[in-house]
Amino acid sequence: MTAAMPGALSDTAFAVRRDAVAAETEALLDRLLASDIQTGEWTRPARLLEAMRYATLGGGKRLRPLLVVETAALFGAPRAQALMAGAALECVHCYSLVHDDLPAMDDDALRRGRPTLHRAFDEATAILAGDALLTFAFDVMARPETHPDPDIRAALVLELARAAGLGGMAGGQMLDLAAEGRFGQGRPMTEADVLTLQAMKTGALLTFACRIGAILGRVAPDISAEISRFGLALGRAFQVADDLLDVEGDATLVGKATGKDASAGKATLVSLLGVEGAKQRLAALVAEAENALQHFGADAGMLRAIVHFVAARKM
Amino acid sequence: MTAAMPGALSDTAFAVRRDAVAAETEALLDRLLASDIQTGEWTRPARLLEAMRYATLGGGKRLRPLLVVETAALFGAPRAQALMAGAALECVHCYSLVHDDLPAMDDDALRRGRPTLHRAFDEATAILAGDALLTFAFDVMARPETHPDPDIRAALVLELARAAGLGGMAGGQMLDLAAEGRFGQGRPMTEADVLTLQAMKTGALLTFACRIGAILGRVAPDISAEISRFGLALGRAFQVADDLLDVEGDATLVGKATGKDASAGKATLVSLLGVEGAKQRLAALVAEAENALQHFGADAGMLRAIVHFVAARKM
Repeated sequence: MTAAMPGALSDTAFAVRRDAVAAETEALLDRLLASDIQTGEWTRPARLLEAMRYATLGGGKRLRPLLVVETAALFGAPRAQALMAGAALECVHCYSLVHDDLPAMDDDALRRGRPTLHRAFDEATAILAGDALLTFAFDVMARPETHPDPDIRAALVLELARAAGLGGMAGGQMLDLAAEGRFGQGRPMTEADVLTLQAMKTGALLTFACRIGAILGRVAPDISAEISRFGLALGRAFQVADDLLDVEGDATLVGKATGKDASAGKATLVSLLGVEGAKQRLAALVAEAENALQHFGADAGMLRAIVHFVAARKM
Repeated sequence: MTAAMPGALSDTAFAVRRDAVAAETEALLDRLLASDIQTGEWTRPARLLEAMRYATLGGGKRLRPLLVVETAALFGAPRAQALMAGAALECVHCYSLVHDDLPAMDDDALRRGRPTLHRAFDEATAILAGDALLTFAFDVMARPETHPDPDIRAALVLELARAAGLGGMAGGQMLDLAAEGRFGQGRPMTEADVLTLQAMKTGALLTFACRIGAILGRVAPDISAEISRFGLALGRAFQVADDLLDVEGDATLVGKATGKDASAGKATLVSLLGVEGAKQRLAALVAEAENALQHFGADAGMLRAIVHFVAARKM
C-alpha cells in the first residue's frame, strides 16, 4: 500500500487487523471441529476429523473470513456472527482446495508448503474430508449462533449454495478442467471465457464473502448492490493477481507449484493480455473496487487496504 | 406384504402410491436440474449438469422421498413441500453413491444396472458432480418453495448437514473404509461397531427422511420422537436387509455387485449373527418400527407397508 488516500490505513494497522481475524478464525475453526458436533449416540470417526482439521487449520490467508468480518464491521453487524459465517466460508474454500488437489483433478503434491491432504493421508480420506467439510459449512451457517433470525440464516445458506455449486465454484472448476483440453479440445478460450471461468471458480465465493456483511447487517438493496460491485471487482483483481503469481511467483513463497497454467496450455489473462496488459487490468480493477467504496468514505479504509493487499500479494 | 393388520394396504395400493412418488420425484429433479439455477451472468457448464442428471435421473427406488412424502401426509404437510425436501435428500443420496463408487473408494463399475458415473464420464467429473449435487441439495432445501417459513428451512438445513456429515453419512463411509482394514487392522468389529457404522452411513439419512414430515408439519416433540423411533428402526431394518441381499441377492436384480462384504473381509450383521440370526433380527426391527407407529392407527398404513417393502426387498 502506498497511496495516502482519505481513510487509508498504515501497513501496520492493516496487518494487525488482518492477523487478528486470521487468529480468531483459526481459534473458531479449532473449536468448531473439536466440539461434539453430533448429538445422540453416534461417534465421530477420528481419522476423518483429523483430516478435516489438517485441511482447515494451521495456515491460509483467511481472506474470505477477513472480507466477511470487515464488511460486517462496516454495517455494524456483530463480529461473532461474522466470524461464524467466515468460518463456514473457509470450510468451503478448504474443501475445494482438497478436492482440486486430488490426483484425478490437478494432482498437486504441495499446498501451503505442506503435503496435500491425499498425500498426507490417502485419496479416499481426502475425498471424504472434502465432502464432510462442505457439509459442515452448511451446518455452521445454519446455526443460531451465526444469526439469531432464521430468515437471515436461510438466506445465507441459499447464497452459499449458489456461490459454491454448479453455477459457481464447482462449475468453475469444471470449466477449468475443460480449459486444459481434457474433454476434447474446443475452440481457443477468449477473454470472455476466461472471465466467466474466473468469476465462477473464485469470484462467486469472494463476492459472497463481501455480501455476507451486508446480509448480516440487513442493509438496503442499493447499499448491498455497491458491496456486490466491490466484491466482484475484488474477486477479479484477485484472479489477475493469481495469474501473474503463476508466471512471476516464487513457488517457495506461494507454497504450491507455479508455472502450472502455461504447462497445462491454459489460457489466462496473462497469456491473453501479456504481463504488462494484465498489470494494467489489475490497476483498473483496483480502481473499480475503490470506486464502489466511495459511498462509505473513511469507514471503508480497511476494505480499501484489502484490495491493495490482494493486488500486491506475493503469496 | 402378507399380514392383514388394521390399516394394511394391498400390495397394489402400496405400489401405486410408491410409484407415484417416484414419478413425481423424477419429474421434479428433472425440472430442478434443467431450470436456470443461477441468476446473473454466469453460465452453467454443460458437462457437469449432464453428469448431475446422470447421477440423479432415471432410476433408484426413491425410498427417501417416499418416506418424506408419506410422513408429511401423515401430519398434513403439503405434498409439494415434501417433494422438494425429498428431492434435496435424493441429491444427497445420489452424491454419496457417486463418491462411494469412485476408484479410490469402493471402485464400483455398475450402479442401478448402468456404468457408474466415473466410468460413463471420468473421475474428475464424478468428483465434481458429487460435490455439486451435495451443494445443490442445500440450495433446494433452503428455497422458499420447500417451506414458506425460514425457521423451518433453517431447521431442515441444519438437520440435513448433521445427517450427511462427519457424525452421519460421511463419517459412516469413513468407518466402512476402516472396516475393510485400509488404515491398518484394528480389533475385530463387534456387533456394536457394525450397528454404529450402519446407523451413521445409512441410518442417519433415513431417519431424517422420516423426521422431515414431522418438521414440515410442525408436530409436537413427543410425536416427533415417535417418528424418529420409527425411522431408526426402519433404517436398521433396511441395513440388515442390505446385508442379507449382499449374501443372497442376485447381482442382475440388485443392479450392482453382490458378495462384496465377504470378499472385503468386512463384518456385517450376517457374518456376526448368521443368515438365520439376521433374519430374526430383521423381523424384530420390523416389529419395532410397527410398534412406533401404533399411536397413528390406520393413518400410518402406508408407512407400515414401507417397512415391509424394505424388509422384503430383492433389489
